Amino acid sequence: MTGVTTLARMTAFARNQWYVAAYGREIGRELLGRTILNEPIAFYRTESDDTVIALADRCVHRRYPLTAGRLDGDTVVCGYHGFTYDTGGTCVFVPGQKRVPRTARVPSYPVVEQDSLVWVWIGDPALADPHAVPRAPWLADPRWTTVGGMEPIDADYGLLVDNLLDLSHETYLHSGYIGTPEVAETPITTEVDEGAGVVRVSRHMDDAECPPFYARSTGIDGRITRWQDIEYHAPCLYLLHSRIAPVGVLPGPDGSDPDAFHVEITYAITPSTDHHVYDFWAVSRDFAQDDEEVTTFLHDLNRTVVLQDVAALNVLQKALDTEREGYQELSINIDTGGLAARRILARLAAEGERTAAVAATK
Amino acid sequence: MTGVTTLARMTAFARNQWYVAAYGREIGRELLGRTILNEPIAFYRTESDDTVIALADRCVHRRYPLTAGRLDGDTVVCGYHGFTYDTGGTCVFVPGQKRVPRTARVPSYPVVEQDSLVWVWIGDPALADPHAVPRAPWLADPRWTTVGGMEPIDADYGLLVDNLLDLSHETYLHSGYIGTPEVAETPITTEVDEGAGVVRVSRHMDDAECPPFYARSTGIDGRITRWQDIEYHAPCLYLLHSRIAPVGVLPGPDGSDPDAFHVEITYAITPSTDHHVYDFWAVSRDFAQDDEEVTTFLHDLNRTVVLQDVAALNVLQKALDTEREGYQELSINIDTGGLAARRILARLAAEGERTAAVAATK
Amino acid sequence: MTGVTTLARMTAFARNQWYVAAYGREIGRELLGRTILNEPIAFYRTESDDTVIALADRCVHRRYPLTAGRLDGDTVVCGYHGFTYDTGGTCVFVPGQKRVPRTARVPSYPVVEQDSLVWVWIGDPALADPHAVPRAPWLADPRWTTVGGMEPIDADYGLLVDNLLDLSHETYLHSGYIGTPEVAETPITTEVDEGAGVVRVSRHMDDAECPPFYARSTGIDGRITRWQDIEYHAPCLYLLHSRIAPVGVLPGPDGSDPDAFHVEITYAITPSTDHHVYDFWAVSRDFAQDDEEVTTFLHDLNRTVVLQDVAALNVLQKALDTEREGYQELSINIDTGGLAARRILARLAAEGERTAAVAATK
Repeated sequence: MTGVTTLARMTAFARNQWYVAAYGREIGRELLGRTILNEPIAFYRTESDDTVIALADRCVHRRYPLTAGRLDGDTVVCGYHGFTYDTGGTCVFVPGQKRVPRTARVPSYPVVEQDSLVWVWIGDPALADPHAVPRAPWLADPRWTTVGGMEPIDADYGLLVDNLLDLSHETYLHSGYIGTPEVAETPITTEVDEGAGVVRVSRHMDDAECPPFYARSTGIDGRITRWQDIEYHAPCLYLLHSRIAPVGVLPGPDGSDPDAFHVEITYAITPSTDHHVYDFWAVSRDFAQDDEEVTTFLHDLNRTVVLQDVAALNVLQKALDTEREGYQELSINIDTGGLAARRILARLAAEGERTAAVAATK
Repeated sequence: MTGVTTLARMTAFARNQWYVAAYGREIGRELLGRTILNEPIAFYRTESDDTVIALADRCVHRRYPLTAGRLDGDTVVCGYHGFTYDTGGTCVFVPGQKRVPRTARVPSYPVVEQDSLVWVWIGDPALADPHAVPRAPWLADPRWTTVGGMEPIDADYGLLVDNLLDLSHETYLHSGYIGTPEVAETPITTEVDEGAGVVRVSRHMDDAECPPFYARSTGIDGRITRWQDIEYHAPCLYLLHSRIAPVGVLPGPDGSDPDAFHVEITYAITPSTDHHVYDFWAVSRDFAQDDEEVTTFLHDLNRTVVLQDVAALNVLQKALDTEREGYQELSINIDTGGLAARRILARLAAEGERTAAVAATK
Repeated sequence: MTGVTTLARMTAFARNQWYVAAYGREIGRELLGRTILNEPIAFYRTESDDTVIALADRCVHRRYPLTAGRLDGDTVVCGYHGFTYDTGGTCVFVPGQKRVPRTARVPSYPVVEQDSLVWVWIGDPALADPHAVPRAPWLADPRWTTVGGMEPIDADYGLLVDNLLDLSHETYLHSGYIGTPEVAETPITTEVDEGAGVVRVSRHMDDAECPPFYARSTGIDGRITRWQDIEYHAPCLYLLHSRIAPVGVLPGPDGSDPDAFHVEITYAITPSTDHHVYDFWAVSRDFAQDDEEVTTFLHDLNRTVVLQDVAALNVLQKALDTEREGYQELSINIDTGGLAARRILARLAAEGERTAAVAATK
């Protein structure tokens, strides 16, 4: 597979979708501002029952950011003239008069808190289905130990999707950390479920060098069988099921796999503004769960790897900023998953636009 | 009064008007550059008689800023190739030849120095009437003691007009300095003189908490009668007549008012470039005139308050920069004065454009 | 000569020309990135024979800069996914598959290394004539001692051409270094060879003050005869033949000139992006060749002078950025050379466009 693609300057945003806005632990009794698909949003937890609230981060009066104001119980008070909003976004106080105008309200956003993540629905709230939020259960499962963080990148979110769906870059960009020659050399298999919007890319290495990331955390010191099974649920959730075992050790016929080490690597790719993306990352393991040293090592090393991606994508975006509209790139086999992801994202973006247009004509 | 307004991205500039360019004390024998309504201007005082001169800050030769050059007696020498201009903007020397081209001149601007302020006329010099410069006499009156300064703001000047015409923000943005709950609670009365381009907003609080700004400077320690009478002379001059007295102490029938404390708060709002404005501020008092401690206290506290406005307007402008053209806002009673000011500014801007068009066709 | 010129915002780039990309000493076994006429280029020397290679600095795969990768022998390995290019720009390795797509190549640029400079051809490689590279032989001649450097300027390259072709600015901008009153006062003679694209501007001062630059380096302590003969080979190479001698000392009838001091000042003016230019400068002398103190003095002083130009042109560009499209300037006699240079540059730019259009239709 080889192909030349002519590209637009920016990957379109897919509305009417769930996006990770934050880790649950990031949201409390201070207002937190995040901009998602160009929409500025203020997040906080209620005093009464700890629910996460998401309101448009612009006062209806003069558009001052609510995040520059303060919480008063379960309400938000604008820091400029004191307009005060309840958890549904309805204004309950304005200065200088008793009557609050009926139209004084800010949009509120549907929120689901699940698997330690806070998801927000960007689009028509009537279409939000809380049961459609994709799962990453190990993030909040006591049998797994998880480290994680979030790094913002000054790049089109499509560049991060590209990056994560083609792990052959590990060999070059992350050499000495998670990359070894076998990653770039081993062919991949790709499966695309267009309807569900899921892309699966697998690379099974039978006999590979053990990179430092795994050598130090598992204690294996010979060569390994290394499986990388990617499952990308467009647009936001990316799962990398990673399996490490001494060479030749395979799962049993019943699927049990007691002699392997499993790592679930979770990314949430949340577009912020046109050329900014939040890169949420987490690494969960089912071994050495209580070993603080392994925990610290995996956190620091994976953060280093993420920061290598951040640096590379910042550089790449700067390079693309100087390209003419409609510049070209050349794709090969390793890009099959990434190209499928782009196709799905384009479809989701078009569907989101269509829904918005229908809603507008009603 | 409630209303939804659709807004343009920028408040139009009103030409053929006087604007404050500087305090007189800022201009001397060093060239001072200020950009007013997008026009870069070089200011200096003559050696011969201390007059303030204002010339376009661009050499006619290659448009190098004159402020990057130097003064030679009453003339300005360009720092690049030495083109030299007299106080009227006529070029009197060029390098490499004896003859100075007839067309070698830069525009000069009408200037009035009055009440310690340097006013400059932006527009057609033939229309400049020095007697039309509005007054703020206490700024240069020995019976008053004045502190002041200037802070640039990275915002549309219209945001500063909004800010100053609606003092209910004092309760939220300046809480603990000049704001108390009564400011936001007390209704205002607004008078608009469309012809003269003057907006008056009054808020008379009969029984109010005394904010630290006044408690420490006047020595009053109980509750107060607090009057705030705003007089905005569009586009540039904003006066806030502030009267503080113990509760129940009122002016005599003849207007005499010996038992009250008076503070004249003067602002000059001078648009620089599209989203930059010079915020000149001064606080004049008729009590404790020689008390240095009160002087220092009022200077520092008012500067802190101004910097709170600067920070808020910088944040607000950044928020508005991401709004679509034609975004909306919701106005209530407290905004009556600000909306009137916007109406007058729009009319002055249109008149300035019209005059320019007429002049161009002559 | 007096004239008003209406200017466009940017001097057009002349393609199908040779440009100085670097000093030879800047290029070795580390990848060096330079952007020339908006084209990002990666430079390096081969391990095998020290030749300078110039490749487009964008991987054909995802347009990651090759300069963010590394050298492997004579090849360049992309730092993102390992695409590997030979010295001609042909891709010789891609990850995950054996077959390298036929279209996988990046443009390579014709290069000439001469007189210590590395020249690169921007335009159609088929038109590149290595014999057409202009000469500055003293830069690599053992009878001359040379100091030099390169300073980037955030300005239209046309501003640097203007600057160098009118040395009357020395009197004002470089007063106390290389400027004296006589430079601005002495009329110039200008000769233009439109066909060859060469502009010559001469200023012969018979009896002039000796500026510090020459007083300290030559040891002359009285007044001097000072000749400045500019030879500008558009678009890139600027030569200033400078001759200093005690007053009255002239060359012999046979052209011999043993009692004068000669300094060859070489500039290469290489447009980078629209408002960025590389300012290469070198000062070569035929006296005190081995005197380290003179060498250090001339280096430091000339660098100071160049940085005065850099600062002035950065300021000038910022001023011009706020001018309306089609702003005007006023030219006088001193500008004759600069105006001729602009005319030639406009013609070369038009010819370059025309050639590109012809090539595109083939």
